[in-house]
Amino acid sequence: MKLYDTKLAPNPRRVRIFLAEKGITVPTQEISIMGGEHKTDAYRKLSPMALVPALELDDGRVLTETVAICRYFEELHPAPALMGTDAFSKANVEMWQRRMEMELFLPIAMTFRHTHPAMAQLEEQIAAFGEVSRGRATRRIDILDADLGKTRYIAGDAFSIADITAMVAIDFGRSARIKVPETATNVQRWYAEVSARPSAAA
Amino acid sequence: MKLYDTKLAPNPRRVRIFLAEKGITVPTQEISIMGGEHKTDAYRKLSPMALVPALELDDGRVLTETVAICRYFEELHPAPALMGTDAFSKANVEMWQRRMEMELFLPIAMTFRHTHPAMAQLEEQIAAFGEVSRGRATRRIDILDADLGKTRYIAGDAFSIADITAMVAIDFGRSARIKVPETATNVQRWYAEVSARPSAAA
Repeated sequence: MKLYDTKLAPNPRRVRIFLAEKGITVPTQEISIMGGEHKTDAYRKLSPMALVPALELDDGRVLTETVAICRYFEELHPAPALMGTDAFSKANVEMWQRRMEMELFLPIAMTFRHTHPAMAQLEEQIAAFGEVSRGRATRRIDILDADLGKTRYIAGDAFSIADITAMVAIDFGRSARIKVPETATNVQRWYAEVSARPSAAA
Repeated sequence: MKLYDTKLAPNPRRVRIFLAEKGITVPTQEISIMGGEHKTDAYRKLSPMALVPALELDDGRVLTETVAICRYFEELHPAPALMGTDAFSKANVEMWQRRMEMELFLPIAMTFRHTHPAMAQLEEQIAAFGEVSRGRATRRIDILDADLGKTRYIAGDAFSIADITAMVAIDFGRSARIKVPETATNVQRWYAEVSARPSAAA
């Protein structure tokens, strides 16, 4: 088994943190996105849309998509559970993971892609969309502050993949000049806690 | 249990098709988006981001997010499986579902939102982003044609939630003037097959 990884990109980090929480070690191969390694024919045979991460199994089958790769490890190594344990908690974690992905991570990624000078050569930038995305991300952080006034972790009492997605999104936000305001004390409290877990260094 | 539904929107249709494939009947309540019912305080208590669908359980707990709602029913009623049956197939279906969602459904939705006159009053439209999204969706249909040259269904030999997402995306494409070209014969063959299933009428 081999994980195709990119140290500086947020999606591979989600997988690395997930594996660290599970205590699983997987051989990795670094793919340099700035060096264009993800767009080579060899890599596209593994990941047709040139996305990183990708997981190659020993029999040659390949999984792409961060959450699908996490799902595979969750099925193989259920403990500690990071995607729920029964029908409701599995659905609830999925709901929160998706909220954090679509409402926080994605607008932050869109802000970065459409406004950051370093992305100008890789992306057809539309600055106006970048700024709309910045507004969406900023408003979602405010809502997240209300959410985290009610629960310890994003999806409730237990740390889950939803926390990983949200923490990586918040860290990614720095690249897009999106910060958690000092007034968002619940997000600050949660972020300090999840960032202090050893897995956060992955 | 009650499903908050909107007949004309694509995401609730994904849940309806999923339930029809499972043979499950759930009481529904129609939420008129054009009538603004999703933005009322009463509905926001169920679905804070004003999204439809939402599933209210008998004990008052609520799930939002299409795929999370589907996950809940998949866990309660595993047969027929629409999200895989073992570690690899669950991850593989999730991978394809996400590909169809992020690479096809989302760009089609963005094209619709950012270019359709009917959305001008609901959305801060950025026409240039709509056209970039149109190009992404169109190119993904071409890639899907190559994908479906290798397999009967999107995720392999078995019909799955990935087919539901892709079929609903293709139908939604009409609202954005995105069509499957006649030359995409594999997509045409697949679309004819999945559209002929009784569930497609849901």
